[in-house]
Amino acid sequence: MAEEYDLVILGGGTGGYVAAIRASQLGLKTALVEKGKLGGTCLHKGCIPSKALLRSAEVYAQTKHSEDFGVITSDVSVNFGKVQERKGKIVDQLHKGVQHLMKQGKIDVFEGMGRILGPSIFSPMPGTISVEMNNGEENAMLVPKNVIVATGSRPRTLPGLEIGGNVMTSDEALAMEEIPKSIIIVGGGVIGIEWASMLSDFGAEVTVIEYSDRIIPTEDKEISKEMQRLMKKKGVNIVTSAKVLPETLKQGNTVSISAEVKGEQKEFTAEKILVSVGRQANVEGIGLENTDIQVEKGYIVANEYFQTKESHIYAIGDVIGGLQLAHVASHEGIVAVEHIAGENPSPIDYDLVSKCIYSSPEAASVGITEDQAKEKGFKVKTGKFSFKGIGKALVFGESDGFVKIVADEETNDILGVHMIGPHVTDMISEAGLAKVLDATPWEVAHTIHPHPTLSEAIGEAALAVDGKAIHG
Amino acid sequence: MAEEYDLVILGGGTGGYVAAIRASQLGLKTALVEKGKLGGTCLHKGCIPSKALLRSAEVYAQTKHSEDFGVITSDVSVNFGKVQERKGKIVDQLHKGVQHLMKQGKIDVFEGMGRILGPSIFSPMPGTISVEMNNGEENAMLVPKNVIVATGSRPRTLPGLEIGGNVMTSDEALAMEEIPKSIIIVGGGVIGIEWASMLSDFGAEVTVIEYSDRIIPTEDKEISKEMQRLMKKKGVNIVTSAKVLPETLKQGNTVSISAEVKGEQKEFTAEKILVSVGRQANVEGIGLENTDIQVEKGYIVANEYFQTKESHIYAIGDVIGGLQLAHVASHEGIVAVEHIAGENPSPIDYDLVSKCIYSSPEAASVGITEDQAKEKGFKVKTGKFSFKGIGKALVFGESDGFVKIVADEETNDILGVHMIGPHVTDMISEAGLAKVLDATPWEVAHTIHPHPTLSEAIGEAALAVDGKAIHG
Repeated sequence: MAEEYDLVILGGGTGGYVAAIRASQLGLKTALVEKGKLGGTCLHKGCIPSKALLRSAEVYAQTKHSEDFGVITSDVSVNFGKVQERKGKIVDQLHKGVQHLMKQGKIDVFEGMGRILGPSIFSPMPGTISVEMNNGEENAMLVPKNVIVATGSRPRTLPGLEIGGNVMTSDEALAMEEIPKSIIIVGGGVIGIEWASMLSDFGAEVTVIEYSDRIIPTEDKEISKEMQRLMKKKGVNIVTSAKVLPETLKQGNTVSISAEVKGEQKEFTAEKILVSVGRQANVEGIGLENTDIQVEKGYIVANEYFQTKESHIYAIGDVIGGLQLAHVASHEGIVAVEHIAGENPSPIDYDLVSKCIYSSPEAASVGITEDQAKEKGFKVKTGKFSFKGIGKALVFGESDGFVKIVADEETNDILGVHMIGPHVTDMISEAGLAKVLDATPWEVAHTIHPHPTLSEAIGEAALAVDGKAIHG
Repeated sequence: MAEEYDLVILGGGTGGYVAAIRASQLGLKTALVEKGKLGGTCLHKGCIPSKALLRSAEVYAQTKHSEDFGVITSDVSVNFGKVQERKGKIVDQLHKGVQHLMKQGKIDVFEGMGRILGPSIFSPMPGTISVEMNNGEENAMLVPKNVIVATGSRPRTLPGLEIGGNVMTSDEALAMEEIPKSIIIVGGGVIGIEWASMLSDFGAEVTVIEYSDRIIPTEDKEISKEMQRLMKKKGVNIVTSAKVLPETLKQGNTVSISAEVKGEQKEFTAEKILVSVGRQANVEGIGLENTDIQVEKGYIVANEYFQTKESHIYAIGDVIGGLQLAHVASHEGIVAVEHIAGENPSPIDYDLVSKCIYSSPEAASVGITEDQAKEKGFKVKTGKFSFKGIGKALVFGESDGFVKIVADEETNDILGVHMIGPHVTDMISEAGLAKVLDATPWEVAHTIHPHPTLSEAIGEAALAVDGKAIHG
């Protein structure tokens, strides 16, 4: 039997389930199809579990140094089973939360693999969804007016560097039962650096091999440089301008692999290898071939309202590429749903999206880097303020890092804000709001930042843009 | 011999020294007179040392519970000597920083007690400053075109409840050599609650006696209520609507005092009493009697540019009353200096000033409370979002508290933002910027708050104002 819906969403990750809630708020009869668990990658294999491990690593690092604060302990050690148990509990609690939100929104959830059908007895247009149910029951047939494809992504690997044995992606790493003594991380992007920071704090010997000439190469150069300095300070071995040679992989009790580093071939050996070289969209097995939907370079092509070539079928989140971030997916979902409901949403300006790195220290940014600004032809002025000049950072016990503001000399617009240091992932939203509201550095500086807070660094950096920092 | 200056500042606290730096940036020949230490109350007897102790208390509380994070320890204890030593080092480092800034700005610092003289051979107007030098040298005579009085404040006591023996203000408490087993805190305002939280985390038995019917009575009622619940949860005994009776004070090995609580007299006994009933302006001994400067209710009267009745003599910071906060003093100093330099600064809108409480949990607010908004005749709508619905708060291990936004139903203006929970003192500046730029809740909600961060609670609260929270 076929059931009719205003909207069927394929994929119950952050993009999909947030879209479902917004659809429910707007009165759309909505179904969500998920073959795994509600919450998707972010909740089960990404943001949340990795941040839970990072938090335990941070507590461990701090506990080892608690004497600096006058707190005496002995026999500090990690019970990694308990670390994993805590991670599991947090994920479970949030998973129940999402299930509750679906019930509250009266959203029908189908647990199974959804597939888009071509024109059929149900509908003259492609878009009917056949769900192969996880429980083995007969396929459910959903006949929607609109579809959102939010099937997400999975970790990419390098050809020849296949998962198995001692070679993992973040998916397998999250399920590790113990901390490896040593690990090679292939890829020094955001995920690679978060793992490097965490495993190093847990006591592993970490080597990061990065193809580009600097780690986190999408961030501002000064942020990369400071992050590299601070990772090295905690003992992480960082090798840049290095091309991993998958064919040199040797597995045994340990695992070794070579890389070409500035013309020379070097071998690296460790207990494990973690491959973090980006993510690949899940476009297979969902019936795209039954539609006119276009796939380019592995990603579904969608317009600014996230419509595919089939205008009633939308696609959002990691499956369309771009900034593969949970908060981007959820906002794309909201825009798509509002467009479906005829609400005339504004398209997303991706220059206004904040990006976070949850290593220790954290990093966060919004807008463009100094180099990008120069490439675009802006006459650039910058203001930078170190956490060393911030009383609260000294009090907190972490004064490495800085806030850097990139502004347009001519218009005085803020082009980008780049931060590395304590709590910056929680502070970037002030910069995000400044960008959304087109604030000038002057306006940010004239917002009285309370004393003593870490956020004073933002006010001082804004003053520094015009050479007026007070504590600089 | 008399030296001439464009500006002499009496008092080298946050207000005074920041004013001096701004004056130096604007090319004014500036002298600063300080009888104690540069940095004043904030650096030596207020914000910084108290936050250093609070941070150690936080680390202690967390270390005791590190097992929750999978981090095993034994024999956790506090070495309060080391706690105090750390505090001292931080203060010293920042003190050196301020001294360096004075040198860098070529600001002449006179260590001694400054006094304003009446009209004399040096000047037909009052304002010449005679400095009784700490080193016993002959008085320095400074002849300024303008003066800023920034002499600050000191803790107030209750008549009959004098300092000495086991009775302290925050000044003496900061110098304690050990943590008292038990303490009575008279006054449940910001400072009282910070001390209650800190000493309770350090293991003391704490009783707070508050005259009003709720603690932190200047904050939004819901914040007071949540703070009271969380203080009680950590074991703090809170007695509200209680009038302390100073005449009942009995000192011995312990100290006891009675209070009238809802008509009944109750006696409280502890090792120490901390009196935190506000601060008193330092208006004595600085020669105000030689001028036309007006003092009302103990505070110097100043206009919106901080001019006193003597238009070339300004007064800023705690000595003029109002919001007695370091960041207010420093901004008042900047406005005064810019006015002196003919820069036409905008007066400060005190509704835009953020206020922070550094207890655990922290609280922070900007703008007016729900009750104040109703009293002013606004048709109020509010949005509230709990940290329980925020993944990062669960990861962090602190999910008590919430963000509450008070908005005007008619104009959609944000009237106030009130926060209690993890890291809120570092996050309030987003709300501060929203107020400065007159942002609507819609604009705050459409700032994509990165996931997973604590700042998502601000975005959700903004959505909740119009009933559109996603995770609510």
